[in-house]
Amino acid sequence: MADNFDTGKAHDSTEDNLNRVVALLRKHDLVTGLVHKQDMPRRDLVEGLVHKQHLTELHALLDDMHSADVALVLEALPLNDRLLVWDLVKAERDGEILLEVSDAVRESLIKAMDSDELLAAAETLDTDEIADLAPDLPKDVIQDLLESLDAQKRSRLQSALSYPEDTVGALMDYDMVTIRADVTLEVALRYLRRLGELPDQTDKLFVVDRDGALRGVMPLQRLLLKDPDAKVADIMAEEVVTFHAEDDATDAANAFERYDLVSAPVIDGRNRLMGRLTVNAVVDHIRQESDNDLLSIAGLREEEDIFASVWKSVQNRWAWLAINLVTAFIASRVIGEFEGTIEKLVALAALMPIIAGIGGNSGNQTLTMIVRALALGQIHPDNAKKLFSKEIGVAAINGVLWGSVVGIFAYLLYGKPALGVVMMGAMTLNLLLAAVMGVAIPTLMHKFGRDPAVGSSVMITAVTDSGGFFIFLGLATLFMRYLA
Amino acid sequence: MADNFDTGKAHDSTEDNLNRVVALLRKHDLVTGLVHKQDMPRRDLVEGLVHKQHLTELHALLDDMHSADVALVLEALPLNDRLLVWDLVKAERDGEILLEVSDAVRESLIKAMDSDELLAAAETLDTDEIADLAPDLPKDVIQDLLESLDAQKRSRLQSALSYPEDTVGALMDYDMVTIRADVTLEVALRYLRRLGELPDQTDKLFVVDRDGALRGVMPLQRLLLKDPDAKVADIMAEEVVTFHAEDDATDAANAFERYDLVSAPVIDGRNRLMGRLTVNAVVDHIRQESDNDLLSIAGLREEEDIFASVWKSVQNRWAWLAINLVTAFIASRVIGEFEGTIEKLVALAALMPIIAGIGGNSGNQTLTMIVRALALGQIHPDNAKKLFSKEIGVAAINGVLWGSVVGIFAYLLYGKPALGVVMMGAMTLNLLLAAVMGVAIPTLMHKFGRDPAVGSSVMITAVTDSGGFFIFLGLATLFMRYLA
Repeated sequence: MADNFDTGKAHDSTEDNLNRVVALLRKHDLVTGLVHKQDMPRRDLVEGLVHKQHLTELHALLDDMHSADVALVLEALPLNDRLLVWDLVKAERDGEILLEVSDAVRESLIKAMDSDELLAAAETLDTDEIADLAPDLPKDVIQDLLESLDAQKRSRLQSALSYPEDTVGALMDYDMVTIRADVTLEVALRYLRRLGELPDQTDKLFVVDRDGALRGVMPLQRLLLKDPDAKVADIMAEEVVTFHAEDDATDAANAFERYDLVSAPVIDGRNRLMGRLTVNAVVDHIRQESDNDLLSIAGLREEEDIFASVWKSVQNRWAWLAINLVTAFIASRVIGEFEGTIEKLVALAALMPIIAGIGGNSGNQTLTMIVRALALGQIHPDNAKKLFSKEIGVAAINGVLWGSVVGIFAYLLYGKPALGVVMMGAMTLNLLLAAVMGVAIPTLMHKFGRDPAVGSSVMITAVTDSGGFFIFLGLATLFMRYLA
Repeated sequence: MADNFDTGKAHDSTEDNLNRVVALLRKHDLVTGLVHKQDMPRRDLVEGLVHKQHLTELHALLDDMHSADVALVLEALPLNDRLLVWDLVKAERDGEILLEVSDAVRESLIKAMDSDELLAAAETLDTDEIADLAPDLPKDVIQDLLESLDAQKRSRLQSALSYPEDTVGALMDYDMVTIRADVTLEVALRYLRRLGELPDQTDKLFVVDRDGALRGVMPLQRLLLKDPDAKVADIMAEEVVTFHAEDDATDAANAFERYDLVSAPVIDGRNRLMGRLTVNAVVDHIRQESDNDLLSIAGLREEEDIFASVWKSVQNRWAWLAINLVTAFIASRVIGEFEGTIEKLVALAALMPIIAGIGGNSGNQTLTMIVRALALGQIHPDNAKKLFSKEIGVAAINGVLWGSVVGIFAYLLYGKPALGVVMMGAMTLNLLLAAVMGVAIPTLMHKFGRDPAVGSSVMITAVTDSGGFFIFLGLATLFMRYLA
């Protein structure tokens, strides 16, 4: 809960915590101490006591920290330290903390736990939270878990597991409080008092009928402010933003952002309440999505534990490098075809990366614009053509502008006016190519139902590299008699 | 408010809205119609009536739409259509909609309004909202606004204007409800009923003393569930996550995410309540920040109205292209220095982009990892060295691995074993260079207080390009007698 912390800047206390844990670990050499203990069982008793005291100190420090802060500390520690700290965290918080850490770190923590510990950790969680952990849990633990749950929870867990990532179903929880429409606010309030506590991020109750169908929502605000003798049916809001479990999570996040929602009901095809979506799940999703965008632009397959082994990192990164190697080989063969031309004028070899590089940069600018506009739903068939001609216009101006600059550069360096003209022509053509592909690649990917953010940058760079070399060296070959 | 919409998927209705507006504009040729009307005042009366009817239809459609949805439609329309729709939107919603659209589109809308309209629009907004609009408003409008506000609002607006972007002060609002600690819940509830309505995203009230100092917070939950006769002082939460107006907005967003907050008090150095931060402001900030990351990676100076004029787009993009041109010139000169070597073995020209390209990709992978870890606060002096050696390890393995692949490729193509060995050596060295710079550049930028996400990708690509050419052509020059 949000109100269990020291007064003061929350992030400051977090950084303080991290520094304090690291200081304790480092200054008292705790990890090394433990290793020694195992190596030499008859180690000096006094020194052992000192270590024990520091461990107690560390234990106390961790107990005072919020689970999310412990997670942050675990992320920032190398593997040995991480496992030592993990060992000291109270067992009943295991589950909560596993939810907070990144996938990569979670893997390293789960590996250090046995089945019983994992089962115990999972049993402290809600079904939707268990579903979040499930991909990382061993199969036998999941089996045991399913057997230990009651029928309602088991069927919820199974359905939560069945929703693909990036759907509302995978983000929703089951912590909704429901009331009936035909009672008074007073009765509803008494019912809430009996419950004793409301789930986090509850800003509204869900009004359902006998069959579980959603009739409306009752904002807590109205419950507080309206006449207690009024009927729920008269006070509730009937027009509600609702979601379906199969809805795209990103669309839902956009709706939360647009309508400033805190929570919203998730219903099935027959309008029956299935669960709720909360803004904290949405914030996590937005964050993860933007993280994934950045990772995929750089060609990292998934988020990486920064202390992962060298070998694991190599595996995470190889696919992208392999793809780029293929595109580089192709570009290399394009140049290879013009070796005769380069032999006649070796300056071409020095100038060709300029054409390819600027083409790639310009293409990526167009691409980013279009990917963004696609994500915001701003592009439809009617305006696509307009965008296309705008980008062509920008490319033409940039081509002539920057083409002149590089042309003059080439002329000054090599004293051949024709070389400058070829540079300018090649630059303009390559920027036009970049503009066309910068619009076409993401639009087509979107049309065929693929995520335009993934892989399109590699594709456009491949095209502007090979294309740039081909255009420049091709023009040079055509006009060689003015150049050599 | 969130509950004023049709039941059904919110995002579906948004897309429907957009499609309906576009259909109305297109099918009935509304924009063209208006233009004609101006050109030929004595235009066929019947046709004029038809247009008028369609305008009325469009008007009704827009009136039914949520401001955020109108904003989305405006974003997706080319300038002429956008201004036509803008004209039809009810004047009292102008301000709200201006808040929702992107900076670029806002500019185009404000340009179409006169000072009186702008003043009227701004007067419908809260002071924190006016502050968000202020950078785009003409100076005389701001002056008039300041004069029209009462003293408290004026001083709030002035202080809101004084906080730099990316601080909590720029995100906070003043819609906080305060109560005293010495009253009973019953009294507090009666006070709220008199207020009649609570601001959006109110999940807690702020408990302040006579001097306005924050004593604690009262979650609405507790107000609902606890004994009405209890004193606020006994029920309130005293340990609260608070922020200062000067705090970094991103740190605050991280805290909101970690502690699942809906709202939090902003206090000054003497613990006095200044305002509040809400999750919707935080979500907007997270979204904008991740947008800015993507834009700056692609070298777009700011978000671009996709229908901006060609000339505006050229201005938005030129700085990046200019920087890249400089780095490309440098790389070109590095190659130029080795023209003698290339003349002896022209195959080098075809192979060199492979070394530079893979180096750039690998460097950007390392860079992205480090930038992320820095943003999450996972890097401190103690573990930086460990990270460094890990990245060197990854680079060494990748260098030998991919170096062998390109070496064999070169050998098979050109039948020279020594060329393969040079390729492999150059690849390994350039990947090591990429790893070192991939860690060093963002770490140093961070150390000197700069945002490591901005510009570091250009820098690393510049180093791996020029460095890659230098290493490869340098090695080839050294071992030329085995190559030629």
